[in-house]
Amino acid sequence: MTNYPYPMLDRPSMVWSKQADRTSDLKVHEWIETVGESSPSWPDYDVTILGVPLSKSSISTSAASDNPEAMRQAWKSFGTYNLDEDIDLAKLKAIDLGNVKQHATDIPYTHQQIEQAMVAIRSHHPHTLPVTMGGDHSITAMLVKGWKKAHPDETVGILQLDTHFDLRDLNAFGPANGTPIRNLIESGTVEGKHVHNIGLHGFFNAKELKNYADEHEVHYTTMKQARKKGIAHVITQALEQLDGKVDTIYLTVDMDVLDIAHNPAAPAATPGGMYTEELFEAVQIAGEHPKVKAIDIVCLDPRKDLGGMSVKSAVHVMLSFLTGYCMR
Amino acid sequence: MTNYPYPMLDRPSMVWSKQADRTSDLKVHEWIETVGESSPSWPDYDVTILGVPLSKSSISTSAASDNPEAMRQAWKSFGTYNLDEDIDLAKLKAIDLGNVKQHATDIPYTHQQIEQAMVAIRSHHPHTLPVTMGGDHSITAMLVKGWKKAHPDETVGILQLDTHFDLRDLNAFGPANGTPIRNLIESGTVEGKHVHNIGLHGFFNAKELKNYADEHEVHYTTMKQARKKGIAHVITQALEQLDGKVDTIYLTVDMDVLDIAHNPAAPAATPGGMYTEELFEAVQIAGEHPKVKAIDIVCLDPRKDLGGMSVKSAVHVMLSFLTGYCMR
Amino acid sequence: MTNYPYPMLDRPSMVWSKQADRTSDLKVHEWIETVGESSPSWPDYDVTILGVPLSKSSISTSAASDNPEAMRQAWKSFGTYNLDEDIDLAKLKAIDLGNVKQHATDIPYTHQQIEQAMVAIRSHHPHTLPVTMGGDHSITAMLVKGWKKAHPDETVGILQLDTHFDLRDLNAFGPANGTPIRNLIESGTVEGKHVHNIGLHGFFNAKELKNYADEHEVHYTTMKQARKKGIAHVITQALEQLDGKVDTIYLTVDMDVLDIAHNPAAPAATPGGMYTEELFEAVQIAGEHPKVKAIDIVCLDPRKDLGGMSVKSAVHVMLSFLTGYCMR
Amino acid sequence: MTNYPYPMLDRPSMVWSKQADRTSDLKVHEWIETVGESSPSWPDYDVTILGVPLSKSSISTSAASDNPEAMRQAWKSFGTYNLDEDIDLAKLKAIDLGNVKQHATDIPYTHQQIEQAMVAIRSHHPHTLPVTMGGDHSITAMLVKGWKKAHPDETVGILQLDTHFDLRDLNAFGPANGTPIRNLIESGTVEGKHVHNIGLHGFFNAKELKNYADEHEVHYTTMKQARKKGIAHVITQALEQLDGKVDTIYLTVDMDVLDIAHNPAAPAATPGGMYTEELFEAVQIAGEHPKVKAIDIVCLDPRKDLGGMSVKSAVHVMLSFLTGYCMR
Amino acid sequence: MTNYPYPMLDRPSMVWSKQADRTSDLKVHEWIETVGESSPSWPDYDVTILGVPLSKSSISTSAASDNPEAMRQAWKSFGTYNLDEDIDLAKLKAIDLGNVKQHATDIPYTHQQIEQAMVAIRSHHPHTLPVTMGGDHSITAMLVKGWKKAHPDETVGILQLDTHFDLRDLNAFGPANGTPIRNLIESGTVEGKHVHNIGLHGFFNAKELKNYADEHEVHYTTMKQARKKGIAHVITQALEQLDGKVDTIYLTVDMDVLDIAHNPAAPAATPGGMYTEELFEAVQIAGEHPKVKAIDIVCLDPRKDLGGMSVKSAVHVMLSFLTGYCMR
Amino acid sequence: MTNYPYPMLDRPSMVWSKQADRTSDLKVHEWIETVGESSPSWPDYDVTILGVPLSKSSISTSAASDNPEAMRQAWKSFGTYNLDEDIDLAKLKAIDLGNVKQHATDIPYTHQQIEQAMVAIRSHHPHTLPVTMGGDHSITAMLVKGWKKAHPDETVGILQLDTHFDLRDLNAFGPANGTPIRNLIESGTVEGKHVHNIGLHGFFNAKELKNYADEHEVHYTTMKQARKKGIAHVITQALEQLDGKVDTIYLTVDMDVLDIAHNPAAPAATPGGMYTEELFEAVQIAGEHPKVKAIDIVCLDPRKDLGGMSVKSAVHVMLSFLTGYCMR
Repeated sequence: MTNYPYPMLDRPSMVWSKQADRTSDLKVHEWIETVGESSPSWPDYDVTILGVPLSKSSISTSAASDNPEAMRQAWKSFGTYNLDEDIDLAKLKAIDLGNVKQHATDIPYTHQQIEQAMVAIRSHHPHTLPVTMGGDHSITAMLVKGWKKAHPDETVGILQLDTHFDLRDLNAFGPANGTPIRNLIESGTVEGKHVHNIGLHGFFNAKELKNYADEHEVHYTTMKQARKKGIAHVITQALEQLDGKVDTIYLTVDMDVLDIAHNPAAPAATPGGMYTEELFEAVQIAGEHPKVKAIDIVCLDPRKDLGGMSVKSAVHVMLSFLTGYCMR
Repeated sequence: MTNYPYPMLDRPSMVWSKQADRTSDLKVHEWIETVGESSPSWPDYDVTILGVPLSKSSISTSAASDNPEAMRQAWKSFGTYNLDEDIDLAKLKAIDLGNVKQHATDIPYTHQQIEQAMVAIRSHHPHTLPVTMGGDHSITAMLVKGWKKAHPDETVGILQLDTHFDLRDLNAFGPANGTPIRNLIESGTVEGKHVHNIGLHGFFNAKELKNYADEHEVHYTTMKQARKKGIAHVITQALEQLDGKVDTIYLTVDMDVLDIAHNPAAPAATPGGMYTEELFEAVQIAGEHPKVKAIDIVCLDPRKDLGGMSVKSAVHVMLSFLTGYCMR
Repeated sequence: MTNYPYPMLDRPSMVWSKQADRTSDLKVHEWIETVGESSPSWPDYDVTILGVPLSKSSISTSAASDNPEAMRQAWKSFGTYNLDEDIDLAKLKAIDLGNVKQHATDIPYTHQQIEQAMVAIRSHHPHTLPVTMGGDHSITAMLVKGWKKAHPDETVGILQLDTHFDLRDLNAFGPANGTPIRNLIESGTVEGKHVHNIGLHGFFNAKELKNYADEHEVHYTTMKQARKKGIAHVITQALEQLDGKVDTIYLTVDMDVLDIAHNPAAPAATPGGMYTEELFEAVQIAGEHPKVKAIDIVCLDPRKDLGGMSVKSAVHVMLSFLTGYCMR
Repeated sequence: MTNYPYPMLDRPSMVWSKQADRTSDLKVHEWIETVGESSPSWPDYDVTILGVPLSKSSISTSAASDNPEAMRQAWKSFGTYNLDEDIDLAKLKAIDLGNVKQHATDIPYTHQQIEQAMVAIRSHHPHTLPVTMGGDHSITAMLVKGWKKAHPDETVGILQLDTHFDLRDLNAFGPANGTPIRNLIESGTVEGKHVHNIGLHGFFNAKELKNYADEHEVHYTTMKQARKKGIAHVITQALEQLDGKVDTIYLTVDMDVLDIAHNPAAPAATPGGMYTEELFEAVQIAGEHPKVKAIDIVCLDPRKDLGGMSVKSAVHVMLSFLTGYCMR
Repeated sequence: MTNYPYPMLDRPSMVWSKQADRTSDLKVHEWIETVGESSPSWPDYDVTILGVPLSKSSISTSAASDNPEAMRQAWKSFGTYNLDEDIDLAKLKAIDLGNVKQHATDIPYTHQQIEQAMVAIRSHHPHTLPVTMGGDHSITAMLVKGWKKAHPDETVGILQLDTHFDLRDLNAFGPANGTPIRNLIESGTVEGKHVHNIGLHGFFNAKELKNYADEHEVHYTTMKQARKKGIAHVITQALEQLDGKVDTIYLTVDMDVLDIAHNPAAPAATPGGMYTEELFEAVQIAGEHPKVKAIDIVCLDPRKDLGGMSVKSAVHVMLSFLTGYCMR
Repeated sequence: MTNYPYPMLDRPSMVWSKQADRTSDLKVHEWIETVGESSPSWPDYDVTILGVPLSKSSISTSAASDNPEAMRQAWKSFGTYNLDEDIDLAKLKAIDLGNVKQHATDIPYTHQQIEQAMVAIRSHHPHTLPVTMGGDHSITAMLVKGWKKAHPDETVGILQLDTHFDLRDLNAFGPANGTPIRNLIESGTVEGKHVHNIGLHGFFNAKELKNYADEHEVHYTTMKQARKKGIAHVITQALEQLDGKVDTIYLTVDMDVLDIAHNPAAPAATPGGMYTEELFEAVQIAGEHPKVKAIDIVCLDPRKDLGGMSVKSAVHVMLSFLTGYCMR
């Protein structure tokens, strides 16, 4: 494969057979191309999908590393056609680039590879929409840094759907799943006031993190507040506010924002959380916004799933977001 | 047992002991009579319950065949008295006829038995309300054909609660769980315009099935639309529309219409689906309508259930429908 | 340990290590003191937590006896700071007294110990708020009797969140989990008209229990009614009505009031039940009311839990109630 | 039903349909008669099966109360013909008498009913072999006392397959699942020297219990010793020793004698325990001995089962024992 | 793909990426070639692997249809090097042909495709060893008939490892999973005296099937007998006896021959069954025998598996057999 | 706490209550002291127990990090008295030091802390027997290096019970769970010829690792060979060979040596592995040997456990080893 631009990636472990003449009623795995044994011609894909099977950086042990493969298995049961909006995602040209290579014991090295992967995607496919399947939330810091490295003049904002602030102390934890937003703020990649976090929960965020958020002017709306105002309204408002201030909005979906009854696979999901119907609407709205240029879906541990419902939800998040993207 | 009118049925495998003098605080299994070792006198029952343990006709492997026995076990924990409406179902005379006999390898033969079972029920208990516990959705085609054979002059309409159109190509699949509505349309049993399908989901219905539905004037409301309008409202509207056009409304409840968090046992249930409270209200409303004359509950695979919640929901659907029936 | 006032209790089996200088970002297990090997000075605690690992008195076999330890394990993942209300529960002084001693085969003896435990708490910590983790619902009768014995001149009312009346016949069952409210009424501890029960379900309450409730003027609102009116509204109304009539409102939360999809661990939870967000709001409102002076959380069998969601909900109920308490 | 001799029993909740002309290839549920709605003629059955759904008397919470129904469900998949020995159990006339009535909160009353049930069986069916499905091990004391009451002049010995001595202090626990053998010794029902216990485990029996066993001359063989000598050999030897000294040998099988990998449903089963093949051989040998006149199978909690393997083993124990009985 | 000889097959749905230069430390999925998008040159493979995802023909509902994909997923964790025998399976040239096409509702059509697949394999790869992953046991009849059709002059014998005779009545069940051996005998494909069945269990084989076996001179050894004699000894003896009488020995491994503790995924596995170490030794011995020319592995339902142990065992059976094959 | 010698440790999170006067019938958690809030006087303990909750260094994601807490919970059901050998472990003075502090993202730092912990144990408690609960197998390299640092003049040998060689390439993986023995050999800590590995499996060890083992004269016995010779014999022989050559034998038990049916929680356990009875005997024999001076138990992921059987086995390994130790 000449000029393969992604030395930091393992090609997808599974290449799905396609029936040559299949043009309608596509399943998602028949739509998304994969980097197989033969080299693709690398046209400018609309969507590039990246797996980051890293969860060693989780504060609590997690198998979120299994999530990219789990999503790939699960999307075989989804079609590309969205009856709700009469939109067929197959009109987008999409490729699954595979997974960022992982080192067994050297987390900093792996983190560097993640950042490089985003840099490479921005260089080789500048017009593409990167969709990343984590892995734990630590990867968001690396991906946004990679974006910033590729686009140093852009101002980047974050739309975060999360139960937590993710503003814990870098000195204590390093680049872990509890620190990515602080990492981005302290590294100067993103300003606190350009972060909007929706879905936070009582009892799972220390007072000192709230204080940090206030000091850095991070915007946040608890789940309880969001439910009262309506999720759609809160999302729309956050996008409007960011729209005036930043060039790019990076959407990061921590799956633990969901209610634990809807998403048992997110180790930190809680009762009283967001419902899937609300989350799907939220990301579709975000997908419609022209400044939302990348998404990641993180912190989902498929080993804790029950009946496959959580992984199905993660796939649905991706497809709902892309539905919005088609509606731009 | 002289003149036993149901040669195509296995009598219920479990006959529940009753305390002879028990007249109040009945549990469902103490209320519903069973065809035991001694022959019943065959009065005209209000409700006849039929099990159809067939799921070999599912496109994906399913153990929906276990559902009739699972529901029978589960209803032991339900009482007949509905506090919400101050109605005691025990005022209805109900009998469990047992299960349609299954052939191990001959699906067409089994399908024929199902149709014959409905013909027999209509002949022997013409004033009864048949309640069928599937099995997969293929059985709906057989049951409605049986109804039509018994009542050739009636116009039959379908109220379908489902995530899917069930309009897939008969040539490719035969009478499978993805084809019953098309089967009914193409066999001339039911007209497309007399089908109302509520609860359909994006990503699980191919564009070509939507096209087929449009061509045949099938009415449909996606889950997202139904939720915005209110389920009760959508159901009421569908019943009103059918009321003017057909003699009989057959209600078919594909349990995969429920959110997967509420019904993990329906293999094709999705996140973002209907909630149980919504479904119970929907079927109670349908039960109240005088033209709704039969119901089936299908596509629930108890082996995938978690904590028994899905099978409990199936029983609750049956009892909520009968509550409506009592309110006629 | 001189003058240890609780001979009927086993001290908590787990004493959590605390980092001596930890003053912020406390987890719940770092906040709640335990009766360890050294005697506490017994200041007047704001909150005293009691475990009652009794479920032999359940009509159906239950391991609700495991719940107190399960909740203690689960609250390690909760912080004391409630972001929603900007309240830190750590301002309350709380102690975990441990569990009421259980006899292997003598249920009446254990019931007596439970009553004595409440008497002792009222004598030794008269200004404290008792929070009891059951165990099955039979314990509510004992706890309220203990309260009444300690405060014979008080009129006590009950605010009950429950799927069931719990008014079954004492002659048939004895002091079981289906009889506590009848036990309190028939023993003259509480008047029927001072009981408000919210969340009752159709099909799980016999007609004769409704009749009993009506005869004794027990107030009740089914889940279906409560949902239509809004849970918050219904709770507020019940509190207002009780406020004018009783000195003390005892709040009893039978966890089976929750929808089974949200609480698979309550053996009698049903589909169509209350959602966790609704329950958390309900108990927070109750916590704010000055006459609500005790709470118990019962009938949760952790062995039936899925992904820990139910036990997490039980802890969240406790913390939501205490949040309300802080807002008085 | 005139002269129904078992007022302390609930008739079996499930009465299996039989095909009238079925005489060969019987499944176990088609062979064992049940006391249905019509009265049996009460011939002298060879085998009478009794369920005792009591586990409130367990020191640790157990749902062994579910075992009788679980075994009844499981034996539907077993045939009556034992290919290994070319013996058809159907030549024995067997009846399932149902379950001993349980009181929700009065354990002593329930224990009394169990004893009375054995007395009644011995009076009404003096030549039958009683097979009891527990319940927890406390019931063995009641059953043997009932036997002794019916046959006051007989000397009774015990062959016990168990991980534990079951000699714990009656003063501390009462008639619980840890005390039945001590109960029998201290009540003078059985002499310690007429008890043979095989399969005991290190780390699960206190030194003081060993001392008690030694003082009362209880015979015991640990699992480790039994495995070295061969289970068959050890059983045969115990039977020979008892043969010379007692009139009746009562066989009690505590299912926790099995390795936890083979029997996850016995809460106290351990790794390194007996294998099912060994247990089946052991009980078949016991079944062959003419003085073994009753058996119970206890301490199996079906809620802890995995893939149904433990309940299947319990049924296999019963059938292997009866195979031996046929070989007398 | 010109001249693709397998129109009745779906190509494997997963094509594993291989690192081009990988020559040592191969995992099984890196060793076995797949029929991918580009046509293979069809050399004469040593081993051809075939999936048959059919379990609609099971008497009890089974998802053995999931087994071929489950085995393909599981073998990713196995290496090709067998340390026990210092043999590397990678010296064999192996290809995974994919799965026999399945019809949703027409079982006879699917059965015909299975037979045709074996005919095609024998024509196109006459020197290959076919390894078939079922599916339920009905497929064995089709595969052996296909073999016989391709080699009409050969006498074929069967070495069967099974808990059951699989000699049930064809008239009652058709070509189901309980009838394949009778199917082969009655169709004249194999003579009863050329069938050796090892591992049969008491209580799971009707007397009339034993009679049939005796009449047709089928050889059988129960599990209990086999364990006493030693599995290796019994297998060797059966092979020796067949060696003198037949041209080809077809090995069929019904995974329910295993103890249920070792193989919870075989719906009919029992306690007291074969252990995995015994089965692996048995199939390795069979693999060494020059007349054993095909193997199938059937009746494993991965949805019932616990911790993946059963599917791992199925893969180990395949690899142990191939190890024996390398030792010829 | 003055002079607390273990700055790299977190004290045990759970301190068990003890009844002051309890001297007999101790449970393991009542016997093992913990470092609580008050400082112990640090006598010279016979046994020091150390938890190492590290599994970030696993090649495949593992939650072996949960194992130390899981073992501490599980040992509450074990007594200290071993009936098999009539030995009470309570005669040993034992302390649980707690867990080595873990960094969220800096694996090398954590590895250093592990090594320091062993150095500290050897300095402060030179006569103690260290028992370490992993964590993954990477920790063995650190613990043995710590030992060697504390005793630079000693020759250390390894007795390893394992399915794998653990000799993978350090350059590729770093100090991961697949490399500890190679790490010890290449760092000069241990010579290859002083390593005895028993229990290795075919298909899970690459040929190149066998070659490495042969080159470095590592001794190894596959499970299949060990079973033929008898585990006890093989262990005894290995100890005898090491006895003449080294000063200290370090015993490392990788729990994946067990059969997956006996230990589903070891992610890499296989069918055909060691049985628990065999492993318990093996470690007891090792415990008796005077040169065996430390043990670790690794690679057990409690989240994969079924019915608690695997964690129970790990505790049993520890107690069987200590039984042997008491027999010296």
